[in-house]
Amino acid sequence: MNEPDDSFWMRMAIDLAIEGRTAYGAVLIDGEGGQIGGFNTTPLHGPTAHAEMNIIRRMTELDYDEASELVLYTTVEPCPMCMSAVVWAGIGKIVFGASITEASRYVPQIRINAQDVAAASWLHIEILGGVEKARCLELLENSIG
Amino acid sequence: MNEPDDSFWMRMAIDLAIEGRTAYGAVLIDGEGGQIGGFNTTPLHGPTAHAEMNIIRRMTELDYDEASELVLYTTVEPCPMCMSAVVWAGIGKIVFGASITEASRYVPQIRINAQDVAAASWLHIEILGGVEKARCLELLENSIG
Repeated sequence: MNEPDDSFWMRMAIDLAIEGRTAYGAVLIDGEGGQIGGFNTTPLHGPTAHAEMNIIRRMTELDYDEASELVLYTTVEPCPMCMSAVVWAGIGKIVFGASITEASRYVPQIRINAQDVAAASWLHIEILGGVEKARCLELLENSIG
Repeated sequence: MNEPDDSFWMRMAIDLAIEGRTAYGAVLIDGEGGQIGGFNTTPLHGPTAHAEMNIIRRMTELDYDEASELVLYTTVEPCPMCMSAVVWAGIGKIVFGASITEASRYVPQIRINAQDVAAASWLHIEILGGVEKARCLELLENSIG
């Protein structure tokens, strides 16, 4: 069996989004096989309950020496709330599917991308976009109406 | 007795910061005399537990028809995590003491100010800075070491 790769984890994030009947799913992994998954629960828990926030709040459940070992997978590029939380948490890498610009065709967005937040911080955070993008865009499209 | 004004609420935020042994206190008020106060609890609750986030998560306890009636007072200008949460919550006005630039002399900051986050959104949010600034800077100074 192949090692889980970026597409593997992103498909898990997509499955979580579908489970939550939302376009937004996310998975946070450590280097030891540990993982935390979640989805957007804003209808239930208010405006701060984005998928990424929900799992960053639980990050101590993972096994790591430095938070920079953690990788966050998320169906849509983190908004500046979630990306700033990534910075404050010290997470080392993020991987997303659809971009904020692409998502803004479906839902109003704060137009500051993840790279801009990282660049305004004191950390180097690796950012990879476009993984399983077609499926993530499909989620956004299906979440309308 | 005078109506509570910006300084009144900011002094309440300062008192909360002192109570929490942190530089960061915040108060969220509705137009009906309701208020929620909090302080930074990141040592206990992780990197997302900024003062503003802690109270925005409890905003449904307040009495309002539209979230735009709410005003957030905070000792330090909201970082882009907290300011984006203000946007997602639809809060109408924020008042802060020390700016992110001023705070960055004491603690590393994400250098995106509240006005930039608001301008990148679809909302008009009123922003007032510098209220009780000297006392807020004192909090930051005393939080060192």
